[in-house]
Amino acid sequence: MSKGKVTHYANIEAKEFGPTAPGARIRVLIGEDDGAPVYKLRMIEIDPGGNSPDHAHPYEHENFVVEGAGQVKIDGVWHDLHPGDVVFVPPGVQHQYRNAGESIFKFLCGIPVAKLIPEV
Amino acid sequence: MSKGKVTHYANIEAKEFGPTAPGARIRVLIGEDDGAPVYKLRMIEIDPGGNSPDHAHPYEHENFVVEGAGQVKIDGVWHDLHPGDVVFVPPGVQHQYRNAGESIFKFLCGIPVAKLIPEV
Repeated sequence: MSKGKVTHYANIEAKEFGPTAPGARIRVLIGEDDGAPVYKLRMIEIDPGGNSPDHAHPYEHENFVVEGAGQVKIDGVWHDLHPGDVVFVPPGVQHQYRNAGESIFKFLCGIPVAKLIPEV
Repeated sequence: MSKGKVTHYANIEAKEFGPTAPGARIRVLIGEDDGAPVYKLRMIEIDPGGNSPDHAHPYEHENFVVEGAGQVKIDGVWHDLHPGDVVFVPPGVQHQYRNAGESIFKFLCGIPVAKLIPEV
C-alpha cells in the first residue's frame, strides 16, 4: 500500500518526448507507480522554440503554469500563458502548447490514470 | 459541452474554509462547473499561523507548492514544504497542512470530482 510521497519536482527524472514534441520533456510527479488511484500529475518543460504536437485525445488536461512564457492553442485559438495561469482542455478538444519566451516554459499537466482513460 | 478555460488563478474567488481550518482559503481552479470529468484542481492558501484540519478521508491529495513555506504531516510525520515540492497523500491516510513562514503558503490540491469519491 502506498505510503505517500514528498519530494521536489527537480528530483524526478525528465524524459524527452521525442520527435513529435521537439524541445519538450516530461516528469511524472505523481502516477500509478506512487499508487495514485485517479489522476497522474506531470510537469512538462519546453525549451525556447519548442512545442507539443497539435493533437486531440479522449481525455482532458488540467494545467497550471509554473515558469516561463508560453502559449496554448485550444480549438484553433492561441492564448498567452504566464506563471499562475490555469488551463482546462476538455476531452476531445484539439490543442497544442509552445514556448513563447527565452527561458524554459514549465507547466503542470494532469491527466487520468491509464485505467480511467476512455477508449476511443 | 465545455469549451475549456484559460485564466489566472487570482481571478477565481477564494472562499474561507471556516473554523476547522483557521486562516485558510480555497479557490476551485478547475471543477465540475468547468466540465472536469475526473479531477478537481484547487488552490489552498493558508495565512501565517494557519492550518488545515488534521484529518483523513477515502480519497487522495495531489499537491504542488506554489508560494511560501509550509509543512505537511503525513501519518504523524511532519515534512517541510517549499515552492516546487510535490506531495502525494494516499486515500485514507491522516494528514494536516500548516503555514511555517511569514507569508501566505499557497499550494495546489487535487482531488477526484464528487462522483468519483469513494463511499466510506
